[in-house]
Amino acid sequence: MRKGRKARQASDAAPARKVDYRNLKNPFPQMKAFSDDHIATMHEAALDMLERLGIKVLLPEARDAFRKAGAKVDESTEMVFIGREIVQAALASAPKSIPVAGGARDRDIVLELGNLVFQPGAGAPHASDRIKGRRPGTWEDYQDLTRLTQHFDVLHMVPPLVEPQDIPMHLRHYATMDAQLRLTDKVPFVFSRGTPQVEQSFEMLAGFRGLSDDAFHAGSQCYTIINTNSPRTIDIPMAQGLIDFAKAGQVSIVTPFTLMGAMAPITVAGAITLSHTEALAAITLTQITREGAPVCYGTFTSNVDMKSGAPVFGTPEHFRASLAAGQLARLIGLPWRSASGSAANSNDVQAANETQFGTWGCLMAGATVVIHAAGWLEGGLTVSYEKLITDIEVLQMVAELCAAGETGGADLGLDAIEDVQPGGHFFGTPHTMARYQTEFYEPLVADYANFGTWTERGETDATTRATGIWQDILAQPSPIKPDDNAMGQLQDYIAKATAAGGAAPVS
Amino acid sequence: MRKGRKARQASDAAPARKVDYRNLKNPFPQMKAFSDDHIATMHEAALDMLERLGIKVLLPEARDAFRKAGAKVDESTEMVFIGREIVQAALASAPKSIPVAGGARDRDIVLELGNLVFQPGAGAPHASDRIKGRRPGTWEDYQDLTRLTQHFDVLHMVPPLVEPQDIPMHLRHYATMDAQLRLTDKVPFVFSRGTPQVEQSFEMLAGFRGLSDDAFHAGSQCYTIINTNSPRTIDIPMAQGLIDFAKAGQVSIVTPFTLMGAMAPITVAGAITLSHTEALAAITLTQITREGAPVCYGTFTSNVDMKSGAPVFGTPEHFRASLAAGQLARLIGLPWRSASGSAANSNDVQAANETQFGTWGCLMAGATVVIHAAGWLEGGLTVSYEKLITDIEVLQMVAELCAAGETGGADLGLDAIEDVQPGGHFFGTPHTMARYQTEFYEPLVADYANFGTWTERGETDATTRATGIWQDILAQPSPIKPDDNAMGQLQDYIAKATAAGGAAPVS
Repeated sequence: MRKGRKARQASDAAPARKVDYRNLKNPFPQMKAFSDDHIATMHEAALDMLERLGIKVLLPEARDAFRKAGAKVDESTEMVFIGREIVQAALASAPKSIPVAGGARDRDIVLELGNLVFQPGAGAPHASDRIKGRRPGTWEDYQDLTRLTQHFDVLHMVPPLVEPQDIPMHLRHYATMDAQLRLTDKVPFVFSRGTPQVEQSFEMLAGFRGLSDDAFHAGSQCYTIINTNSPRTIDIPMAQGLIDFAKAGQVSIVTPFTLMGAMAPITVAGAITLSHTEALAAITLTQITREGAPVCYGTFTSNVDMKSGAPVFGTPEHFRASLAAGQLARLIGLPWRSASGSAANSNDVQAANETQFGTWGCLMAGATVVIHAAGWLEGGLTVSYEKLITDIEVLQMVAELCAAGETGGADLGLDAIEDVQPGGHFFGTPHTMARYQTEFYEPLVADYANFGTWTERGETDATTRATGIWQDILAQPSPIKPDDNAMGQLQDYIAKATAAGGAAPVS
Repeated sequence: MRKGRKARQASDAAPARKVDYRNLKNPFPQMKAFSDDHIATMHEAALDMLERLGIKVLLPEARDAFRKAGAKVDESTEMVFIGREIVQAALASAPKSIPVAGGARDRDIVLELGNLVFQPGAGAPHASDRIKGRRPGTWEDYQDLTRLTQHFDVLHMVPPLVEPQDIPMHLRHYATMDAQLRLTDKVPFVFSRGTPQVEQSFEMLAGFRGLSDDAFHAGSQCYTIINTNSPRTIDIPMAQGLIDFAKAGQVSIVTPFTLMGAMAPITVAGAITLSHTEALAAITLTQITREGAPVCYGTFTSNVDMKSGAPVFGTPEHFRASLAAGQLARLIGLPWRSASGSAANSNDVQAANETQFGTWGCLMAGATVVIHAAGWLEGGLTVSYEKLITDIEVLQMVAELCAAGETGGADLGLDAIEDVQPGGHFFGTPHTMARYQTEFYEPLVADYANFGTWTERGETDATTRATGIWQDILAQPSPIKPDDNAMGQLQDYIAKATAAGGAAPVS
C-alpha cells in the first residue's frame, strides 16, 4: 500500500506523535458496587467497630498517641477504642489534594480524586525474565526494573519492584535510595521498616535534593505503603511508619490487604467494611500525629481460591471490591489507591486477562493510584520483565483514552467524505495525509503483520517480543544525569552510614 | 489449609454454584467519546449526506423501494438521495425491542438497549488449534465450534464461526442450518447471500420449528449481519438481505465495517459519521420494505496500522469508536451491535489484551450485542479454539459482574468480624462456611496453583490448558437432542434441495 510505505518511512525518520502520559485524569465513568445507602451503612459500621470493638495497635507510642487524642486504650490487650468523633476529625483534617515532588518538576504528581497514577508491580521477592528465568530478586534486578519504570511515562511513581535480596537488610535502604535517585526522576518510595531506616532515607533524599529539614517537611517528596495486619491489627513498623511519615510531611498510602474468605469476611461488602475500618484507624493515627499530614486511603481486597486457599487477583470479586472501596473513598473525599494484579505463574493469557480485568476495576472505581498495574505475577511473588512490558501496552492504551480530547478531537472530516466517492478510499485524502502520522496510537509490543509475514519472521509471541524491548531499553545508557555533587554527597552519606553499621529493620 | 481441602472435596462432589449467564443486563456506566452536541452534529451530518450526497444502491429492487418511499434516485449512477423525513420515519417505526426466539424458551433473547448479548468470533475463513494448527475452515470445524458455542451460556447467539470451505457454496447453507439446529438451541444465523439461499434457510428453520409461514413471519427466529460497502455503497446481496429479512420479520444487524484511514475518514468522529450515514440508509430500507421490521443498529469501526495498512482491533481508536456509536445508538433508541477483536496471529498476550480492551469499549459503550467477543484472531481471518476458551473466561467474569446483585449481596458479615479477633482468620467462621462453595467465580482456564506446584505439573500456560478444555467438551456427546421428526424432515428437505441443484449465492 503506497501511502502505508510512505508513512513508515516518514515515521521512522521522525516520529511526530507525542501524547502526554504524565498527567492523567481518569475519564472513565465510576461504577457502584453497592447503593449509596449500603456504602453509608458500611462507613457507619466501620466507625462503630473502631469505637466498640477496637483495633489492636502493637506500638506503645501509637497507643499513647491514640490515648492523648481521646481514645480508650487497654494496655493489657493492646486494644485501642477510637471514638467516631476522633475519626471524623481526622477525615476532616486529612488533605484532599497531595502534591508530591519527583526529581524534576515535570515528574511531580498530585494525589487527589480524579487524577490517575500508575505504578508497576511492587514488593516481589522474585524477578523473572525469559533469559535468566525466575530467581530471587537482586540488586541488579532492582536497578534494571527501576530503569524500565523510568523509561515509560505512563508509570508515575517508583515502587520497590523487587527485593534486592543480595543486599543485607540493614544496608538495603541505602542501595534502593541510591538507585532511585541515580536512575529515575520519578516520585521515590521508602519502606517503613522502622524509624532508623526511615530517618536515614529522609536524610538521603533531602540531602540529594538540597532541601533543609524545614523545606523537606513542608512538602511531600516520597511515599510509603502501610499494610495493616488484617483483621484489625496495626503492627510496630507500620504504626511507626504512619507516625514518622506524618511527622515529616511525607505520604503514607494506607492499604489493608484483605483477602475475602481468609483474613476478611468472605463477602465483598464484609471484606471492604473490615478494610475500611482498618484504613480509618491508620488515617486517624496520621492526623493525630500531625494535623493535615498527607495520607492516601487505600484498599487491596481480593479473594482466595476456596479450593486451595491461594490469593487470586483480577477476579470479579476483586473488581467489585475495588468499586466498593472507590465509593468509600469518595464518601470520605480522600485520594486512594487500588491495585490490579494476577495469580498466574507466567506471562501468559491468564496473566494478561487478570491484570487487565483488575485494572478496569480500578479505573471504573476511580482509583487515584493503581499499584501492581504492570509486571506482577504469582500474586506478587514475582515481577516479570516481559509482563512489565506487555502490561505497559495496556496502560498506554488507557492513557490514550485519558488524552483522547487532545489527540482525537471531534473532526468529522465531512470534506473528505464528500470528496471520496462510493467505492473509493481515504488513504490519499488531504484529511488523512494531514493526520496519518499522529492520529493513532503506535503500539509497543503488538505485531500487526499478517499471518504470512509473522510466520516468516519466526512466529514470535508478544512475550518473546517483550524480551527484545526491555533488552533494548537496558542496552541504552541511563538518560538520568544526576548532579555530581549531590550524588557524591549521597555516596559519602552511605559510606559513612555503612561504616557505622547501617540500620537494622524494626519488626 | 484445612477448610480449603474440605471445600475442594465438597465442590468436586457437587458444585453448588450456578450463576445465570443467559439474560444479562449491562451494569456498566456508559461513557461518552464526544459531547451530546457533537453527537447531534454527527447525526445531522449523516441526514444531510443521505439527502444531498446520497448513497449508491446496487440492487434495482432496493432503488425502486427507495423511489416509492420518496427518495430521489439517479439510475445512471445508482445513487439514491434519501430525504431526512424518510429516514426519520424509519427510525420512528423501527422497533426498540426485538424478541428473538432460540430453539428453547430459555434461549430466547431480547435485543434492546440495556441488554447484553455475546457472540464468539464470526465469519473466519480459517480455523486454528494447537493440535492441528491453522487451516482453512471445514465442516468439522464449523460443527465443533458451534458445539463449543452451545456449551457456554455466556454466548447467546450462534454466529457463522468459520466458513466450512469443504462444502460448496451452493450447498453450504444447508450444512450450516443443519448444524445449528442439530447442535445448538441458541439463536441461529443466516447469511444474506441472495434470496434463494435466504428463502430456503427460512423454510428449513420454520419447518424444523413447526411454524407456519404466518407464524414464522410474526416473530423473529434468526438473524443476519449486513455489512455495507464503505464508503457509501450497499451491494446487491446486502440490499436483498435487508429486504428479504424485513419482509419475513427476521432480524438484520446492520454493520458498516469502516476502517479509519482506509474506507473511512481517519478520525473517529469522521469514521463514525460515515458509518452512521450508511447504517441509517440500511435501516431505512428495512422500514420502507416493512414498517416495524426488526433491525439492529451497528458499527464495526476500527483503525488501520498506518505503517502497513493492516486493520487493527482492540486499540484506543476502536474503543472510542465504540463509545461514539453507542451514543448515536442511544440517540436513535435502537438496540445495537459492536465488536471486539484482535489483530494478533496467535493466542498470546497481545491477543488477550486486544480482545479484552475492545470488549471493555463495547461494554462501556452500552452495546446490546458484542460480536467477535471470543476466539477471533488475525482481524477475523481465523477463529482459534484456544482463544475461544480463554476469551470466554473474560466474558464469564464480565457476566459475574452483571449478576453480582444475585451472587454477592451487600452482606457485611458484621457478626463474623466481631467473632474474629485480631490475628485470627475467617476460614472457619459460620459466615464463611455458609458461603464458601458459592461466593466466588470458579475459573474456567485460570490456574491458581503456586509456582512450585505449577512447575511440577508441567508449567502449562493458559493456551495449553485451553486445549484440554475444548477437547473435553467435544469428547462428550452433544447435549442437544433435536426432535427426530423435525430432524428427519430437515434432512429430507436438504436431500431434495441438494438433488435439485442447491442454491447458488448471489453477488
